[in-house]
Amino acid sequence: MDSQRFDRQLRFVVEIDKLKRVLRQTTLMDATRNENSAEHSWHLALMALLLAEYSSRPVDLARVVRMVLVHDLVEIDAGDTFCYDADANLDKEERERRAAERVFGLLPGDQGVELKGIWEEFEEMETPEARFANALDRLQPLLHNLHNGGGTWRIHGVAREQVLERMRPIGVAMPELWPFVENALARAAEEGWVR
Amino acid sequence: MDSQRFDRQLRFVVEIDKLKRVLRQTTLMDATRNENSAEHSWHLALMALLLAEYSSRPVDLARVVRMVLVHDLVEIDAGDTFCYDADANLDKEERERRAAERVFGLLPGDQGVELKGIWEEFEEMETPEARFANALDRLQPLLHNLHNGGGTWRIHGVAREQVLERMRPIGVAMPELWPFVENALARAAEEGWVR
Repeated sequence: MDSQRFDRQLRFVVEIDKLKRVLRQTTLMDATRNENSAEHSWHLALMALLLAEYSSRPVDLARVVRMVLVHDLVEIDAGDTFCYDADANLDKEERERRAAERVFGLLPGDQGVELKGIWEEFEEMETPEARFANALDRLQPLLHNLHNGGGTWRIHGVAREQVLERMRPIGVAMPELWPFVENALARAAEEGWVR
Repeated sequence: MDSQRFDRQLRFVVEIDKLKRVLRQTTLMDATRNENSAEHSWHLALMALLLAEYSSRPVDLARVVRMVLVHDLVEIDAGDTFCYDADANLDKEERERRAAERVFGLLPGDQGVELKGIWEEFEEMETPEARFANALDRLQPLLHNLHNGGGTWRIHGVAREQVLERMRPIGVAMPELWPFVENALARAAEEGWVR
């Protein structure tokens, strides 16, 4: 057994505990508190297992699950960037790239390269797996906002068209679900949750 | 598209949000708050990806990941049962079995049967996948307690021999890591974290 290798793996396992303290704008469905990025990632992984049948293209589901498990790890350094905050999104890419170097760099070389590659694939949104994973990452907060009274849409005065634009990857990766998204936004508009 | 099927999948996705509110005895590594079972499951899934090389038997890693993602869902109804609480463990099995019927029963039949089967496999601890997943479920709180000053061991006055007994599945599934566990417990005893 290579004890240096195991030490690096342990250091990473300890480091990623910090993702449990990175808070998202989204609240839990019962609105009792903000969601953190670790439990959000768990939720996406289970959604991937259940909703893969709606992907318009065949996906390597195990890879999708890995992807959603690691997709937010960069937030340990870069924090969560609210998707409707245009200013904060200006330097998001650079902040997250530096974070990826450090966080995945804690791992033994082979594992760091592999997980960083999966994270980059998610960010580039080009493969079927990355498109499907990104669609889940849009669908999940939509479900939260539908259950917690409009959540971040209402608090930040987001417009229906902005949300629809943000949800577009769902239409690409899971076109069968697009009518559900449109109906949900129509209901949100009726409720006064979106402008 | 079968809209009844999708409704059931959605109902399940909404229901499992409650696991984020099930608190474990273990605290985060910085001891700022108790860990919840959703983020704990996420942590195990990443550990599975990184530590599979130590499994003494070949495992279907995608299955292990599914297993740790669902292993605590029954706690939505049954709550988290502290492993060193003998009384609470008396009716744990029955409480969790009823919870599994209800929670996995929300899903479309095929998916409910599949996930409930994976949960049962975890509980029975017989397949290589279940043994490895259970070992991870023991190793993770050990790492937490080593980083938060003895955590649940100290608070509940747990004895070193009790912890070693509880950690035994690590020795079975990942024998190479057993010396690490023994050394960790020796250090915990020196620090006065275990009796």
